[in-house]
Amino acid sequence: MDHKQRIAGLVSGIEERGIDGAIITGPENIHYLTGAPFVRGSYGKILFVGIGGTASLIVSDLDYQEVIGTVDSAEIVKTDFMEKPLDRLKKIVKGTPRLGFEEDLVSAALKERISAEFRVEPLRGILERMRERKDPEEIAVIEMAQFINDRAIEKALGNLKAGMSELEIAAELEYNLRMKGAETFAFETIVASGPRGVYPHGMPGTRRASSGDAVVIDFGARYGGYCSDMTRTLFFGDPSAEVKRAYEAVKEAQERAVESVKGGVTGRKVDAVARGILEGRDLGKFFVHGLGHGVGIEVHEFPVVGPSNGSPLAPGNVITIEPGVYVPGRYGIRIEDLVVVEKDGRRTLTKFTREMVVI
Amino acid sequence: MDHKQRIAGLVSGIEERGIDGAIITGPENIHYLTGAPFVRGSYGKILFVGIGGTASLIVSDLDYQEVIGTVDSAEIVKTDFMEKPLDRLKKIVKGTPRLGFEEDLVSAALKERISAEFRVEPLRGILERMRERKDPEEIAVIEMAQFINDRAIEKALGNLKAGMSELEIAAELEYNLRMKGAETFAFETIVASGPRGVYPHGMPGTRRASSGDAVVIDFGARYGGYCSDMTRTLFFGDPSAEVKRAYEAVKEAQERAVESVKGGVTGRKVDAVARGILEGRDLGKFFVHGLGHGVGIEVHEFPVVGPSNGSPLAPGNVITIEPGVYVPGRYGIRIEDLVVVEKDGRRTLTKFTREMVVI
Repeated sequence: MDHKQRIAGLVSGIEERGIDGAIITGPENIHYLTGAPFVRGSYGKILFVGIGGTASLIVSDLDYQEVIGTVDSAEIVKTDFMEKPLDRLKKIVKGTPRLGFEEDLVSAALKERISAEFRVEPLRGILERMRERKDPEEIAVIEMAQFINDRAIEKALGNLKAGMSELEIAAELEYNLRMKGAETFAFETIVASGPRGVYPHGMPGTRRASSGDAVVIDFGARYGGYCSDMTRTLFFGDPSAEVKRAYEAVKEAQERAVESVKGGVTGRKVDAVARGILEGRDLGKFFVHGLGHGVGIEVHEFPVVGPSNGSPLAPGNVITIEPGVYVPGRYGIRIEDLVVVEKDGRRTLTKFTREMVVI
Repeated sequence: MDHKQRIAGLVSGIEERGIDGAIITGPENIHYLTGAPFVRGSYGKILFVGIGGTASLIVSDLDYQEVIGTVDSAEIVKTDFMEKPLDRLKKIVKGTPRLGFEEDLVSAALKERISAEFRVEPLRGILERMRERKDPEEIAVIEMAQFINDRAIEKALGNLKAGMSELEIAAELEYNLRMKGAETFAFETIVASGPRGVYPHGMPGTRRASSGDAVVIDFGARYGGYCSDMTRTLFFGDPSAEVKRAYEAVKEAQERAVESVKGGVTGRKVDAVARGILEGRDLGKFFVHGLGHGVGIEVHEFPVVGPSNGSPLAPGNVITIEPGVYVPGRYGIRIEDLVVVEKDGRRTLTKFTREMVVI
């Protein structure tokens, strides 16, 4: 689907709700609707979508040069030096239309400022619902991001050795992501070894991995503005029988959950498949998060794959399946693949082995 | 200053305004006030600061293990599996106090949800004003982050060669940041070569740097939760006389601006020093952004160092000084140092040379 079709999709979504236009400020949504380069956390552009689908992208001098070559669905409007984009927007908007805004991305302070100038109301998930069903072009880009991710872990594996620090392991993984073509990282790389494995967001530190340590490695590439996301738990030395059993349980939970994915099955049901297997091995109480999440321009998107989501998965959803067990003071284990939901099944984008890897 | 003193500072700030407590959800502010590990973009914790300075940090099972060892200024409250932190907060708050919230970090949607339960009002910069004046411990941590940054570029330099792609250059820089101890990166690494140098947020791509290309390299370490930030423009081959002249102009603008920094001078005045030098060389129209910004837990904090800031810089501000020229279709050049404002002068944390480096 090209960017103009996506803008048309937004327009039909807002028209159904009796809204006349939209003020879009989130860099992820601006990338989705226009193709403007996505830089995480880089706010400052405003996309105004008006009645009939006219679109204007307001950018500063700073961003102008980069945007003109990439945006094909909106007129580019350059602000003067020091002019605020909101001041320029006031000059563009004619009359007093009702304008939708991104209530989950716009801060409370910015909402006050735009409410003072325009009649606004929340978009209530119109863009999120469009974005959670990926079109074939988006799936191809995510597949490439995951291909980079798989090649990076394969290549890094040749350089990992018992006794390396978490920081050194992260350095190898990220170096290879870049060398395989990642334009940046999808999120903060997690390398959490031994007892630190129970920190699901464990930033790499100086701890050295050895003596059978389980090391949770969770990292991703960004490519073409889209994310990949994978987790493997590698062993630095031969693990204990207890840890091996836990690994096999997580692996089975992960594989059975992946096999249960297809269009029409709820996120809750897929979560329950994994959770049931871990409960059957007395590990259920150590699985303290949901099973997965959608992935796209952001690494966490809809749909939720967990107990809270009673809605059916749909073809075109791209989701993670990532059960884990975290035994406080002892170890953490997580295995995560990226999966495309299809009408009668699923396609796993992650090709790297789920078998136990001992370094 | 320890975390308890910071919470006391917040409490005295809100008491002056007649507010009874605060709901803090931004991970940067939670890190500042409690020491809880900072993971960029990781929302989900709530810090409740009540009357008299009592503090409770509400975390999920997922985050509990990591938080108990690091937080020394708040009671830790663990939610039940699937319980929302806001539901737990309702059980903690007694009576109907007036509670401050972070209006620039809280989304419009979250503000609606908290307003439905509590009497809330914006904190209006109380935490930003505390955070923009760093205490000696914070400055020491930022100095270490910049030390890692300097060592990484020095080490990477030995491996850079004409003909390398922007991605390969980024891989070297980031690998060495990790190996020198960066727990993560302060922001998305920029490597923008030749005509791509005019993209101030240019993500590294497949373009190869050679034949005298100017390559803008802007990258930073995160260490102890704090950021460094530096830019150098390296030349891959000998540049043209025109580009050399522009480099010398940016370098002089940068050095004169740094020398003008001291407590009491406005951000606008320091910006004007650099801008005046570039205007004197007919390059003023190519300097399309402000001169700098504060750096701390976030890479962009207060104070602003630019035409919009007529307030005096204060001792303890940590700021960037980063003039640049961007000639569309041709080249970009930027030089950036990290500087601590002192009462009668400044201290430059960046030690890497500003002299022209030709690879």
